[in-house]
Amino acid sequence: MPLADVDTPALVIDLDAFERNLDCLARGIAAAGVRLRPHAKTHKCAPIVHRQMALGAVGACCQKVSEAEALVQAGVPDVLVSNQVVGSRKIARLVSMAREAKVGVCVDDADNTAAIGAAATAAGVRIDVLVEIDVGMARCGVAPGAEALALARRVAATEGLRFAGLQAYHGLAQHLRSHAERRAAIDSASALVRSTVELLAREGIPCETVAGAGTGTWEFEAASGVYNELQAGSYVFMDADYARNLDAAGAPVADFEQALFIYSTVVSSPVPERAVTDAGLKAFSAESGVPGIADIDSAAVAGVSDEHTTVDLSGSNVRLAVGDAVRLIPSHCDPTANLHDWYVCVRDGRVEAVWPIVARGCIW
Amino acid sequence: MPLADVDTPALVIDLDAFERNLDCLARGIAAAGVRLRPHAKTHKCAPIVHRQMALGAVGACCQKVSEAEALVQAGVPDVLVSNQVVGSRKIARLVSMAREAKVGVCVDDADNTAAIGAAATAAGVRIDVLVEIDVGMARCGVAPGAEALALARRVAATEGLRFAGLQAYHGLAQHLRSHAERRAAIDSASALVRSTVELLAREGIPCETVAGAGTGTWEFEAASGVYNELQAGSYVFMDADYARNLDAAGAPVADFEQALFIYSTVVSSPVPERAVTDAGLKAFSAESGVPGIADIDSAAVAGVSDEHTTVDLSGSNVRLAVGDAVRLIPSHCDPTANLHDWYVCVRDGRVEAVWPIVARGCIW
Repeated sequence: MPLADVDTPALVIDLDAFERNLDCLARGIAAAGVRLRPHAKTHKCAPIVHRQMALGAVGACCQKVSEAEALVQAGVPDVLVSNQVVGSRKIARLVSMAREAKVGVCVDDADNTAAIGAAATAAGVRIDVLVEIDVGMARCGVAPGAEALALARRVAATEGLRFAGLQAYHGLAQHLRSHAERRAAIDSASALVRSTVELLAREGIPCETVAGAGTGTWEFEAASGVYNELQAGSYVFMDADYARNLDAAGAPVADFEQALFIYSTVVSSPVPERAVTDAGLKAFSAESGVPGIADIDSAAVAGVSDEHTTVDLSGSNVRLAVGDAVRLIPSHCDPTANLHDWYVCVRDGRVEAVWPIVARGCIW
Repeated sequence: MPLADVDTPALVIDLDAFERNLDCLARGIAAAGVRLRPHAKTHKCAPIVHRQMALGAVGACCQKVSEAEALVQAGVPDVLVSNQVVGSRKIARLVSMAREAKVGVCVDDADNTAAIGAAATAAGVRIDVLVEIDVGMARCGVAPGAEALALARRVAATEGLRFAGLQAYHGLAQHLRSHAERRAAIDSASALVRSTVELLAREGIPCETVAGAGTGTWEFEAASGVYNELQAGSYVFMDADYARNLDAAGAPVADFEQALFIYSTVVSSPVPERAVTDAGLKAFSAESGVPGIADIDSAAVAGVSDEHTTVDLSGSNVRLAVGDAVRLIPSHCDPTANLHDWYVCVRDGRVEAVWPIVARGCIW
């Protein structure tokens, strides 16, 4: 089936670009001698996890128990919930999953640690636990150093839990635009991680895993000598926001290519320099900016609304008619994927596969 | 079941506020002597349409054929797709629906008009068609006046179609903050509509329906003397963006109350003045700003990410512990509802009903 026959709006993967992205990170990770546990919160899609694992990833991470359940049910053998799991019902589901797959979770609270341990013990399973430390993001995580040591000791002493190491993701660093700023942020994070790892080692608590990193900074964590398990996710698709990051020479980053598009149809063109398409805020997220437009030089998005994207062609030689298709570039891939039920996977203009977004809407 | 037992994140309707919103607009519309065809793109929920119709609404409008299908299948007898429907597959579905319900659609293109007419004729049905005119939004719609007349003539002459009137929605006016600005925008729109209606009348083409209006401006269209069918949608729920509109006295608008909330649990509180909840960009949309926080004075949202909202309590006397629940106020209700499968309907702190969001994800 040609792409042109796909009903719109549709979420489309350019398979050639997607596969190059997977290969690029797998090679970079292997060269650095660290592990890759890519984030499935980006794509929420089991066939993508299986492809990442075929290229060497040790498993997947995700943010929600329901996402982990969807992946385990689809045959993913090793899942880390790189987030806090709070409340007796969610904890019961987390430990229940550990009968079917290797399951890990992050903690930053003593009572929550105790609750997970009690549930795991009651279920007769053991859960891998990473202590989350705040290395500059000011979101979740205890302070590096003494606080981390205290919580690590508590995890190690809790029946049903195994202390597996540290979670140290620096989310704010991902979209710092200059290479130097991103490097400095991760240098700072790495120093905090290193001193904490050394403190724990002196106290007889080895950190098997030191996890973190994202698409914007993975090269720095990979080279840090202290992070050993990287969690980049968006690299599979890229988006307009990540594409604004700059490399060391000040040029747009080029390690990964745009592989995700919203395929959309022009439904109105009341004047020649304006085309309105059938994809809006229910087909892409826009909190990181309006989408870009692929394939058409000098076209600009003049506005987005719930079900429309208005394209300004006044600066372009291209004209679009009602019924023409365009490809929009999402500004933020993760919440965009969460709006769709499947990926239409395209190569050379033809649909090669349709992959279900099995964890779409899994917010629990 | 008490609200406190509901797993989070959950999309919650405060039924008392919701019912007051429905009553308020129904009374205002009745007093103005116009019709209400509320927009179901906001809530995507058949039980809400049925409640709106029980209070006098003549039917529903929506933006997509798939939304209309979901509503018709749930017993809604009269649906207007207040948007362009383009492409043979979507048009075939539109006309097919007309065997089960009264179906209308908007057009702003001659070829599209012909395609819908041909499909309706082939299916043996007749579709109500509104000619969409651009009254200041610069999105879809032909120009008022001669262009509208030409397209109306074409509709009236097309087998399978019935010219039903004009669609004249001014979306940009909805969020102009001052009452005077909103009034001026709708005065301008109404003048364009009136002259077009009069032109068509002189040419023997009566406009049975003149449709438009939204939650921000409905009072002006209702009083215009020319609009006779209003399409407000967000009034059922309200959101933080609409709440920034001001009334004639310069105070926040008070005709409708906030009735929609994201019920969310604190999953991390690494320091006393910071609480991180389990709802992020996959539980609410944020292109119109971060969500507000209900019930807690002087709390502020410090940031949102894919699965978290970070609450800054440094200016508040309230402290939140891991496991505590908070209610977030969505900044934009329509795309937020599209992220959930059901509404948890609450009165006096207890769950009274769960309503499926049947048209969630209906973007086709």
